[in-house]
Amino acid sequence: MSSSILCVLNDEEREDFLPSDLWSAIERLGGPVVHLRTPWAQELSLSEYLIASGTETLISGWSTPPLAADLPVGAEGQLKYVCHLTGTVKKFIPRTLIERGLRVTNWGTSASRTVAECGLLLILSALRRSSYWAIAMHRDGLWKDRYAVTTESLFGRSVGLHGFGAVARELALLLRPFGCQLSTYSLGVSDDILSQYGVKMVSSPEALFSENDIVVEATALNPQTYRSVNEKLLRSIRPGGVFVNIGRGAVVDEEALVRVAAESRIHVGLDVYDVEPLPVESPLRGMPNVTLLPHIAGPTKDRRRDCGEFALENLSCFLNHKALKSELTLELYDSIT
Amino acid sequence: MSSSILCVLNDEEREDFLPSDLWSAIERLGGPVVHLRTPWAQELSLSEYLIASGTETLISGWSTPPLAADLPVGAEGQLKYVCHLTGTVKKFIPRTLIERGLRVTNWGTSASRTVAECGLLLILSALRRSSYWAIAMHRDGLWKDRYAVTTESLFGRSVGLHGFGAVARELALLLRPFGCQLSTYSLGVSDDILSQYGVKMVSSPEALFSENDIVVEATALNPQTYRSVNEKLLRSIRPGGVFVNIGRGAVVDEEALVRVAAESRIHVGLDVYDVEPLPVESPLRGMPNVTLLPHIAGPTKDRRRDCGEFALENLSCFLNHKALKSELTLELYDSIT
Repeated sequence: MSSSILCVLNDEEREDFLPSDLWSAIERLGGPVVHLRTPWAQELSLSEYLIASGTETLISGWSTPPLAADLPVGAEGQLKYVCHLTGTVKKFIPRTLIERGLRVTNWGTSASRTVAECGLLLILSALRRSSYWAIAMHRDGLWKDRYAVTTESLFGRSVGLHGFGAVARELALLLRPFGCQLSTYSLGVSDDILSQYGVKMVSSPEALFSENDIVVEATALNPQTYRSVNEKLLRSIRPGGVFVNIGRGAVVDEEALVRVAAESRIHVGLDVYDVEPLPVESPLRGMPNVTLLPHIAGPTKDRRRDCGEFALENLSCFLNHKALKSELTLELYDSIT
Repeated sequence: MSSSILCVLNDEEREDFLPSDLWSAIERLGGPVVHLRTPWAQELSLSEYLIASGTETLISGWSTPPLAADLPVGAEGQLKYVCHLTGTVKKFIPRTLIERGLRVTNWGTSASRTVAECGLLLILSALRRSSYWAIAMHRDGLWKDRYAVTTESLFGRSVGLHGFGAVARELALLLRPFGCQLSTYSLGVSDDILSQYGVKMVSSPEALFSENDIVVEATALNPQTYRSVNEKLLRSIRPGGVFVNIGRGAVVDEEALVRVAAESRIHVGLDVYDVEPLPVESPLRGMPNVTLLPHIAGPTKDRRRDCGEFALENLSCFLNHKALKSELTLELYDSIT
C-alpha cells in the first residue's frame, strides 16, 4: 500500500463536504485519494489500517471511527496529519497523539457564518414570537391575539455578544443593516478588531447582560465558562429582553434558565443545550416565549462545501510545508470542551 | 370650538405612534392637539364633530371611524388634511373627499423596514425549517431527524424580488451581508435605483420565479396583480426553493399555492393571506414546509413611533405650506387595494 491520502467518510459527508470539484482539486495536490466508507467495515481497525497502509494524511469527519491512543504518529510512513472536516475532535483523537506530534486541523472558522445566520434567525424569531405563532397557527387554529401587539423589531436595538470569536464577528456583520449598538465581553480581543467590527468592550458579563436589549451567548466552553451564565446573570436581562444561545449549552446553567424563562419576562432562542438531544421531559419544551432548534446552527447542508474548501487549503499548506490554518494546538485541545 | 388639530385614536395607538415627545413636538408646531378617544363615544358622529369644531387637520389611525362622503372639505374652517398614522385608508376615507380637495397622507414608507425585516425572518425560517422544529420540539417531543440534514443557508443564494417598492428596497439592504444575487421584476424602476441597490431587472415574472432560489412577493395589489401569482408561476419555483409573501395575500392564487405547497417541493413563508384572519380550516395550517405568521410584518409595537415621526414631518410640511411626503393622490388611491 502507498502513502496516498486516506479519506474515511460516509457517502453523504463526502458529497456534502467534498463535492467532485474539491475532490479532484485534492487529488491534483496529493495524488489519488483512497475513500473508505463508513460505517467502518474493514477487517482491520482504522488504526491498524493506517499502520498497514503507511498513510501520512487522513481526511476525517463526523462518522470516522476514533484513533487508538498507541497509534505511531509523526515519522515517515506514519500518520502525520489529520485534516478533520468538522468541529470537535476530542472523541476522535486522543490527546497523546497530538503530544507525540500528530498535526490536526478542523473546520476552523469555515462554519462560523452559518452559525451566525442561525443566531440572527433566533433573534428575529424571539422578537417576533414566531415559535409561538407556528404552534398557534399550525396546531391551535389561531390568528393574531394580544401576543401580536407585543412583537418587536431588531432595528436600533442594543446587542451584547458574550464572546467575540469567529461566530460573534460574523454575527456583527449580519447585524450591521439593523443599526444596532454592539458590545461584547470577551478576553484577549484587540482594540483594532473591536473597532473594525464597531463593537464596544464592556468590563464584565454583568454589564453585558444587564445593559442590552438582546444578549447572544457565543463564548467557548471551558472550565472557566462552564455554567458561568448563572441565574443572577439571566435574571439581570431587561424585562422584554432576548437571550439567544448559539454557543455551547453547558456555558449556561440550564436549570436557572428554565426558572427565569418560566416567568415569561424574557424571550429566549436556543440551538444548544446542556444535554443533547434535549430530553423529552425538558421544561423548555412547551414554553411560548422560547424558540427551540435542535442544534442545527451550522454548517447547513448546502454550505458544508465551505468546510471542504477550508480543508483543501490546509491540505495544500501541509503538502507544501506551509503553516496550517486553525491548527489544533494542545492548548486549544485542552481549552475546548 | 377652535380649528386646532384633532387626533382620534385609542390610548394604545396614541402611546405607540405618538409618544409624549412627538406629541409635544406636534403641539409646538400647530398648537394644542385635542385627543378624542376611540372607540368613538361622542354624541355627534366624527364628521358632525369635524364640522362643528371647524377642524382643518385630523390625525387618524386604525381605530378612527370612517368619514362621511358628504363631509365639506378643503375650504377655510373645513377639514383640509388627514394625517393618517397607518396604511390603508380606503375604508376610512371615501374617494369623493379626495376628489373634492381633501389632502391625505399615510405612513408612507416609514413602516417598510420592519416589513422587510419580517421578510428576512420568513426567508431564514423557511431555509432552516424553523416552523417545523417549533412544533416538533415543543409539541411532539422530537429532536433532529432526517429533516435536519435538509436545512439551508441564505449565503450566496439568488433572491428574486417581485415588486421593487419601499419594502423590497429595504429587504435588499438587509440581504447585503449574505452576498445574494438580487433580481426583480417591477415596472417603472429606474436603472439608477437598480444599480444603487445592486439589483438586476428581469424581463418577466416567469423569469423571476424560475431563475431564483428564493422568491419574495412584495408587489402592490391592484386589478393587474390580483391573483397574478398563479399555479404556473408557483410551480416554476426550483425544487427546494423558497416562496415568501410579505406583500398582499390576494396577489397570490392561494388555492394554487395550497396545491403546490402540499407537494412539499418548495418551502413557503407567509405573513399575508387571501382571506384574513386565515380561516381555521385553511389547508395551509399543518403543512410542515410552510411557515405562518398572522399579518404582523409591520410596524412592530416598538417601531410605531417611526410612523409618528413621519406624521410629524408631514404635519410640519402641511402647516408650513410645503409639499407633503407620500401624499395619497387619486391615482394612488385607485391603484392600491
